[in-house]
Amino acid sequence: MTPERRKNFDRLLNPRHIAFVGGRDAIIAINEARRRGFKGDMWAVNPKRDALAGLTCYATLQDLPAAPDAVFLAIPTHAAVAAIQQLSDMGAGGIVCYAAGFKEAGEDGARAEEALRQAVGEMALIGPNCYGMINYIGNAALWPFEHGGNSPGYGAAIITQSGMFSSDITMSQRSLPMAYMISAGNQAVMGLEDYLEVLSDDPAVRAIGLHIEGLRDIPHFERAALKALQNDTPVVALKTGTSQIGSALTISHTGSLSGANELYEALFKRTGVISVSNPSQFLETLKYLCVVDAPKGHRVAGFTCSGGGATMLADHSEKIGLTYPKITGDHVDNLTKLLPDIATVSNPLDYTTPIWGQPEHTYPVFSQAMTAMQADAAVLVQDYPAVGIDDSKIYYQNDAAGFAQAAAAQDLPAAICATIPENIDAETREFLISKGVAPMQGIHECLNAITQAASWCEGRTRILAEPPDPLQVAVVSDRVTLVTEDAGKDWVADVGVSIPKGRCVGAAEAQGVAQNIGYPVVLKMMSHQLAHKTEAGAVKLGITNDEELAGAIFAIKNDVQAYAPDAVTDRYLVEAMSPSPLAELIIGIRCDSQFGAALTLGSGGILVELIQDAQTLLLPCSVQDIKQAIKDLKAGQLLQGFRGRAPADLDLIAQNVYQLCNAFLDQSDTLAEVEINPLFVYADQICAVDVLLHKVA
Amino acid sequence: MTPERRKNFDRLLNPRHIAFVGGRDAIIAINEARRRGFKGDMWAVNPKRDALAGLTCYATLQDLPAAPDAVFLAIPTHAAVAAIQQLSDMGAGGIVCYAAGFKEAGEDGARAEEALRQAVGEMALIGPNCYGMINYIGNAALWPFEHGGNSPGYGAAIITQSGMFSSDITMSQRSLPMAYMISAGNQAVMGLEDYLEVLSDDPAVRAIGLHIEGLRDIPHFERAALKALQNDTPVVALKTGTSQIGSALTISHTGSLSGANELYEALFKRTGVISVSNPSQFLETLKYLCVVDAPKGHRVAGFTCSGGGATMLADHSEKIGLTYPKITGDHVDNLTKLLPDIATVSNPLDYTTPIWGQPEHTYPVFSQAMTAMQADAAVLVQDYPAVGIDDSKIYYQNDAAGFAQAAAAQDLPAAICATIPENIDAETREFLISKGVAPMQGIHECLNAITQAASWCEGRTRILAEPPDPLQVAVVSDRVTLVTEDAGKDWVADVGVSIPKGRCVGAAEAQGVAQNIGYPVVLKMMSHQLAHKTEAGAVKLGITNDEELAGAIFAIKNDVQAYAPDAVTDRYLVEAMSPSPLAELIIGIRCDSQFGAALTLGSGGILVELIQDAQTLLLPCSVQDIKQAIKDLKAGQLLQGFRGRAPADLDLIAQNVYQLCNAFLDQSDTLAEVEINPLFVYADQICAVDVLLHKVA
Repeated sequence: MTPERRKNFDRLLNPRHIAFVGGRDAIIAINEARRRGFKGDMWAVNPKRDALAGLTCYATLQDLPAAPDAVFLAIPTHAAVAAIQQLSDMGAGGIVCYAAGFKEAGEDGARAEEALRQAVGEMALIGPNCYGMINYIGNAALWPFEHGGNSPGYGAAIITQSGMFSSDITMSQRSLPMAYMISAGNQAVMGLEDYLEVLSDDPAVRAIGLHIEGLRDIPHFERAALKALQNDTPVVALKTGTSQIGSALTISHTGSLSGANELYEALFKRTGVISVSNPSQFLETLKYLCVVDAPKGHRVAGFTCSGGGATMLADHSEKIGLTYPKITGDHVDNLTKLLPDIATVSNPLDYTTPIWGQPEHTYPVFSQAMTAMQADAAVLVQDYPAVGIDDSKIYYQNDAAGFAQAAAAQDLPAAICATIPENIDAETREFLISKGVAPMQGIHECLNAITQAASWCEGRTRILAEPPDPLQVAVVSDRVTLVTEDAGKDWVADVGVSIPKGRCVGAAEAQGVAQNIGYPVVLKMMSHQLAHKTEAGAVKLGITNDEELAGAIFAIKNDVQAYAPDAVTDRYLVEAMSPSPLAELIIGIRCDSQFGAALTLGSGGILVELIQDAQTLLLPCSVQDIKQAIKDLKAGQLLQGFRGRAPADLDLIAQNVYQLCNAFLDQSDTLAEVEINPLFVYADQICAVDVLLHKVA
Repeated sequence: MTPERRKNFDRLLNPRHIAFVGGRDAIIAINEARRRGFKGDMWAVNPKRDALAGLTCYATLQDLPAAPDAVFLAIPTHAAVAAIQQLSDMGAGGIVCYAAGFKEAGEDGARAEEALRQAVGEMALIGPNCYGMINYIGNAALWPFEHGGNSPGYGAAIITQSGMFSSDITMSQRSLPMAYMISAGNQAVMGLEDYLEVLSDDPAVRAIGLHIEGLRDIPHFERAALKALQNDTPVVALKTGTSQIGSALTISHTGSLSGANELYEALFKRTGVISVSNPSQFLETLKYLCVVDAPKGHRVAGFTCSGGGATMLADHSEKIGLTYPKITGDHVDNLTKLLPDIATVSNPLDYTTPIWGQPEHTYPVFSQAMTAMQADAAVLVQDYPAVGIDDSKIYYQNDAAGFAQAAAAQDLPAAICATIPENIDAETREFLISKGVAPMQGIHECLNAITQAASWCEGRTRILAEPPDPLQVAVVSDRVTLVTEDAGKDWVADVGVSIPKGRCVGAAEAQGVAQNIGYPVVLKMMSHQLAHKTEAGAVKLGITNDEELAGAIFAIKNDVQAYAPDAVTDRYLVEAMSPSPLAELIIGIRCDSQFGAALTLGSGGILVELIQDAQTLLLPCSVQDIKQAIKDLKAGQLLQGFRGRAPADLDLIAQNVYQLCNAFLDQSDTLAEVEINPLFVYADQICAVDVLLHKVA
C-alpha cells in the first residue's frame, strides 16, 4: 500500500466527516453511524431529496463543504464509478462502496470494477459489494444494516468476505471485545492483506479475525501475517469454501478464487495464523486472545465444582493435547487442609460444594492449587443460572472473583467457561472481562481456544527466530512436457539425491549393463509417450539372470507395442533392484499460480492412498521445516525407530529434500513439476526409485 | 423392574402428593415444585421446625395424612435409610434421595447404600446423591436447586449422571422441549437402564437423552435401548469419562465404572443409540429429534440468503456425509423465473436479497425448490438480529413462515439454523417450534443433528429387521493359560478356518514333514513358556531346503536356550510358507466383565499400529455385522478391489469370523481369548497365519 493510501485509510477508519451518498440504504447507514455514537460531521448527498434521516441533502458531491474523510456510496454501479472519480479529484479520504453490480455480476461488472480501480487514485476503498466498516474504538460506522457489538476500549479487528456473516457477528451475544469490523466485498482496491497489514499496527487491536473465501495476493498475505506476528497480534482465520460444492459457490459469490485447502493450511502454519473451522470457535478464540495473553504452553490448571465438569475438561483436553500437571509433594497436604473431606486433591480439581461460593475458602484453594499446578493457563468451569432464576448467582460470582484474583496474582492467563455456551450471562461476561478473565462459552470451545493460543505462542517464537523467506508468485505454464525417467533421475542425481545404479542403453547393450551392475536388475522402456509405464507393461522387476533379461526385453516390446505402438523405443533403463526399505515416501514439488512452489511429502504405498497421509509446505522453506513435516506424517513413526525397527536418518532425508526444493526454485522457469514416487528410505541412506519430471514446454 | 416398582415409579413421576423431608434443601425443593406449577398436596416433614416455605411441618412421617406418592429426602445418610424403611412400610410410592454419604463416600457409605437397597422394598428410588426429578409435562418437581426449562406438551426425557450437568441443562437457553429431567446419582435402586425402559413408553417423550459416565447392566441397557427403538423413540448418549484422567475422576465421583470407549460405541451402534461428544450437540440433536421426524436419508435441501451461508453449509455437510441433490431439468427454468437475476439455481440455494423477506416471492421459491430437490430434510440458514436492534426481524420471520409452510406441505423435516448459535431469539425459536420447524443453534450443530437423525432412522430399520441376540454377562477369569500355537491352530481349523499346511513334530522328523509339505517352509518351536516367539528367536521364515532347515533347528535351539532355558522343547511346528496376501487382518475375541464377549477386527501390519484401524463388535452379532465392520475398516478398501487389485471374498471372511465368534461363545466357559494375527486374505481364501489362544486356567 502506498503511504498516501495508508493515510487515506486512516482517514476512512477515523473520519472527521462522513458523506452518505444514496437513498434508502444511506438513511440506514446514517442511523447506524449515530447508533455507534459518531461525533463528527455527517453529510447527506442526494439530488432528488431534501433530507436523509434528518440531514439536509447536498445535491452533488461538489456542494460538500469539504473533501470528506469518509464516504458511504450506495448508488448504482456506473454512477458509483463516476462518483469515485469525482471524490478522488476532490481529495476525499476513503470510500465504502456498498454499490454492487461489479465483478460478481459478470463481464460488464468486471469492466466496471476495472474502471473503479482506475478512478480510485490513492483513495482507500472498501468493497465494492460489501457491507462496509465499523470502528468500535473511535466510534464511526459506514454500515448499511443494524449492527450490534461493543468494545471495552480494545478488541478484535474482524475482516470478512461475506457481508451477511459480518452482520451475524455484530449480532452475536458473546461480549467479544470489538475494535473494527470490515466487510471486504470484492476487494477491488484494498484486500484482506491490506487490512491485516494496517490493523496489526493498532495498539487497540489485540487479535485479528479473518473470514477467508480466497486470498488475492499470497506473498502479500505472508508479509502482512508475519508483520502481525512481529507485532504480537494473533491472527485467527476461518477459511470457508473447502468443499467441492462450497468452492463452486465461493467463485460465483464474489469472484474470488478458493485455493486448495492444503495450500491455505500450509500458508497459515508458515505464518503463525490460527486456523479454525467453525464460526463459534472463531469468535471464542478471538475473545480469549483479546482478553488474556496467549499461554506459553499447554499445561492447564483446571477447576470445577462438579465431578462431571472435571471429567468433561479431561476428556476433551486429552484429545487436543492439553495436560493437567499433577499436584505433588507438600502441596497435596496443604490443599487437603483447605478442601472439604469429600474432595480429592487432583487436577482438574473438583473443589466440591461444601465450600462453593465462599471466597474465604475458595480463594485460598485457587491460589494454593495454582501455585502447586505450575500451569501455563487456568480454567474454571461455571454454568451460571439463567437470568430471572438466579438467586444463587452470587455464589458463582464469589468463586469467580476469587479465581480471578488468584490468577491475576500469579499472572496466569485465566478463563471461566460454561459447559453449555449460553450459561454465562452478559453481566457476568463483562464483569469477568473487566477482571482480565476470558468469559468462554462452551467447554470444548474454551479448551480449543487455549490450545490454539498456546500453539500460536510457541509458533511465534519459532517463526520469528528464523522467519521464512518470502513466497514468490509463480507463472504457471499449462504447457508441460514429460521428461523420461532416466533424464528425470539424472536431474535428481545432479541435485545430490541417490538413485539406483543404472544406465540407459539400447536392447543390445542391456545384458552388458546388467552384468556390470549385478543381478537382480530392473528393466524399463524409456519413451516420452509413456507417462504410465506400469500400465503399458514397460517395467519388469527382479530380473535375476541373462535369460530372464532377454525375456523381459521381448515382453516389454510386445506389451508396449500392443498398448501404444508409437511409444515403442529402443531405449531401456537397466537398474539395480533396490532392496526393501524401512519405509517409502513420496515427494512432489509443483507450482501453483497463487501460492507459488509447494512441496508435498507423503508416505508411499497404501498409507497415502488409504488415509491421505501427506504434509504440504510452501517454498522456500527450511531444512527444519521439512524434518518436522516428515515427523508429522503418520508414517513419520516408521522412520523414528518404530517397534524395534532401525530409525532412519531424518536429517539426511530432510537435507536431500531441501536440495531438491532449492534446485526446483532455481530452475522454476523451466521446471513444471517433479515427483519422486517412491523414495526408498533406509537406515542410513535413501534412494529415488522412480522419478517423474515435467518441464515447461 | 417389577410391576410394583414400575407402578410406584409412575406415582413418583406424577404424584398426587409430595412429602419434603429435611431443612434448607427441602425449602428450596418446595419452591421449585411451586415454580413448576405442581397442583397436588405438598407436605413438609421436620421435627424441629414449625413450617418449611410456608408449609406447616409434620413432626414425623407417621403423621402424614396418607402414604405420599413422592418423597424428597434431604436428611443425613443414616436417618435417610431409616426413613426409607418407614416409607416402604407405609406404602409410599417413590423417593428422590438427595441425601449423600453413600457409595461415593467410601466403605461406610457403601454399607449404608446396601442398607438403603434392603430398606427400599418395591418403592421407586432416584439416587442417592442426586438432584432428583422434574416432570415438565405433568408439572411436578423434586429438585433441590432453581431450575429452568419448558415444554410445549412434549419433549425430551433427559437422564444424567452428573447433578450439576442436569442443572446446567435446565438453565440452557435453547427452547429444547422438555418432558422429564432425572439426575440419577448413585443408581442404588433404579438406573439409567430402568429410566430408559420406562420413559420410552411415554407418548410425550419424543427423544431420550442420556449422560453416561458408566452403565450398571449392559444386557439390560441393550434390552431397554432396543425397546426404545421399537417404540420409535430416538436415544442420544453423551458418554463422558473417555480420557484417562476423566476415567479416574468418574470412578471417584459416583462410584460407577467407566468402560472402554470402544465397547460403549459398539453398544450404541448395536442398539441404534446416537452418540454425541459435546453438550451443545447433545441438546441440539435432542431438540431436532423432538421437533421433527427423523429424515429417512442424508439428502438435504439447503437455503440461504447469503453466499457465505451456502458455502458454510456445503463445507461441513461434505465432511459428515450430507448431500445436496442437484436441481435438474425443467425445474431449473421454473426456479430461474422465480429468482432474481443475480441468483444462481443451485443446492444449497442462495435466494439472494432482492426477494428477501417478501413471502410472496420466497414461498414459491421454497416450494418449487423443495419439489425439485427431492431431499429428505430441509434447512434454511437465518441469523436473526439481536433483541433491541431488530427492526429487520419481520423480514426474517416472513421467510421463516414461507419456509415452514413449504416444508409442511411436502412433509419434509425442516430446520432453521443460525450460523452463530445465539442468533435466533427465544420468541423466534418458540414460533418455529409451534410451526413444527426445529430452531437450530449453530450451523455445524444443525447439520450434525440432521445426519445423526438420518443415520438413526436407517439404523432403526436395519436393526429392527434383524434384532441382535441378547448380550450375555460374562464371568471373566483372571487366571488364564496360553495354549501353544499348534493347538491354537487346531482349534481354529476345527472351527473351519484355514490354517497353513503343517505338522508339529520333534526335530528328527522335521525334514520329512518339510519335504512332504514342500519348501519353502516356516519353522517355530512350540512351548507353553514362549508367549513372544519372535523375540525369543523361536521362529524362522522362508526355509528353502533341507540344509537351511537343519540350520534353523540349530539356531532356534541356541536362541531359545539363551533367551529362556526352561522354555526349550523338542516340539517344532513345520508349516508351508504362506504367499504374500492382498491384505492382512487381525481378529481378536475376548470377554469383558461388563460387556461380555467382544470381537475386534483390525487391519494387520502397520495400519493398525499407526492409525489404530480397528472395529469392535459386541457378541453375538450377525454375519452381516461382521461384513460391514470389515468394510468400515480403512483397510476395507484394500479388500474391495482397491486400485486394480483383486477384491477379496468378504462373505467368506465374514462367515469364517462368524464361526470363530460362535465357537468362542459356545466355549466361553473354557476359552479366555483368541487372537489371529495375522489373518492373510487372498482373493478367494484366507489363512490364519498365527494364532494366540488363551484358555481359562
